[in-house]
Amino acid sequence: MYHLTALVTLLAIAFYFFTAINVSRSRDKTGVKVPAMSGHPDFERAFRIQMNTLEWMPILLPALWLFAIYISDAIAAGLGAVWIVGRVIYFIGYSQAAAKRGPGFAIQALAAITLWVGAIGAVVLRLVK
Amino acid sequence: MYHLTALVTLLAIAFYFFTAINVSRSRDKTGVKVPAMSGHPDFERAFRIQMNTLEWMPILLPALWLFAIYISDAIAAGLGAVWIVGRVIYFIGYSQAAAKRGPGFAIQALAAITLWVGAIGAVVLRLVK
Amino acid sequence: MYHLTALVTLLAIAFYFFTAINVSRSRDKTGVKVPAMSGHPDFERAFRIQMNTLEWMPILLPALWLFAIYISDAIAAGLGAVWIVGRVIYFIGYSQAAAKRGPGFAIQALAAITLWVGAIGAVVLRLVK
Repeated sequence: MYHLTALVTLLAIAFYFFTAINVSRSRDKTGVKVPAMSGHPDFERAFRIQMNTLEWMPILLPALWLFAIYISDAIAAGLGAVWIVGRVIYFIGYSQAAAKRGPGFAIQALAAITLWVGAIGAVVLRLVK
Repeated sequence: MYHLTALVTLLAIAFYFFTAINVSRSRDKTGVKVPAMSGHPDFERAFRIQMNTLEWMPILLPALWLFAIYISDAIAAGLGAVWIVGRVIYFIGYSQAAAKRGPGFAIQALAAITLWVGAIGAVVLRLVK
Repeated sequence: MYHLTALVTLLAIAFYFFTAINVSRSRDKTGVKVPAMSGHPDFERAFRIQMNTLEWMPILLPALWLFAIYISDAIAAGLGAVWIVGRVIYFIGYSQAAAKRGPGFAIQALAAITLWVGAIGAVVLRLVK
């Protein structure tokens, strides 16, 4: 079983859920009414934070689980935790200004790409053996 | 095996697919041409219905499957079915007016959050035992 | 184990990742700054390519894996490979003009729908037996 990876998956989802709730809160603060998706830079940044987090979900989750299955539950979960930390830093930075979104983005990208590289390496190794 | 959860997963996907097709149909009706994503309130609501359903997919599907694996295939599938019903009500309401999107949204959110809470509870219980 | 399906999953993710990088490159070329998501037709098409690929991820990945588990790893992986080829054709066509997005879209849709139909058929068969 992959208890640690399961736990990190649920925590990653919870953080993503928080970015979505933050968009609703930003609508109240900035007065951008549904279904409009633009009209105030603060709202647009909040929306982009959620969208970018969503956009990385189909990269993170399959890479995380294939890494866990093919390599290690604990290492997968550790890299998944780094991804969440990177996303929190990204959230804080991008909420302040678009120019501050870099470091958090880089951390989460590195974590996700490491999971992907590890997983594809392990899969190919099994296939050629 | 998790036959019921597999079935509900495929039905949830089918409904999501329907919300995407509805966006295409709305383009024809409202005359909003690709790649534009705004220009007519009916189109914008149809697009937001699809987007919001998409936005919840990475919450629903992992929570659904971890609940099924850690707790019960049948209960997971039942909650997944409630999620679909909530999404149908959301679709019908939001298609009429943005103000009518509340009840369906609440139902699907409750179903997804119940799956998440059950799954994380069961995972943590296994880890601390 | 589902080595071929795992491989195709990681390749599909990699291609999706490439469509996201292409949006960043398109920002540089067209001068559309974050968090704006419109302002130049070339940028809007690049963004729509990524978004549409993202929109199909929750259809493709669960259908792919359920097909692999219930029917065949090799056939699932083959259909997944067709999906990727369709997405590459879609990317090339839509990058040139919105009117050229049809053939690639049709190929990837057919591959994904075949996976879905096969998976639900196999799941229902197991449930009624």
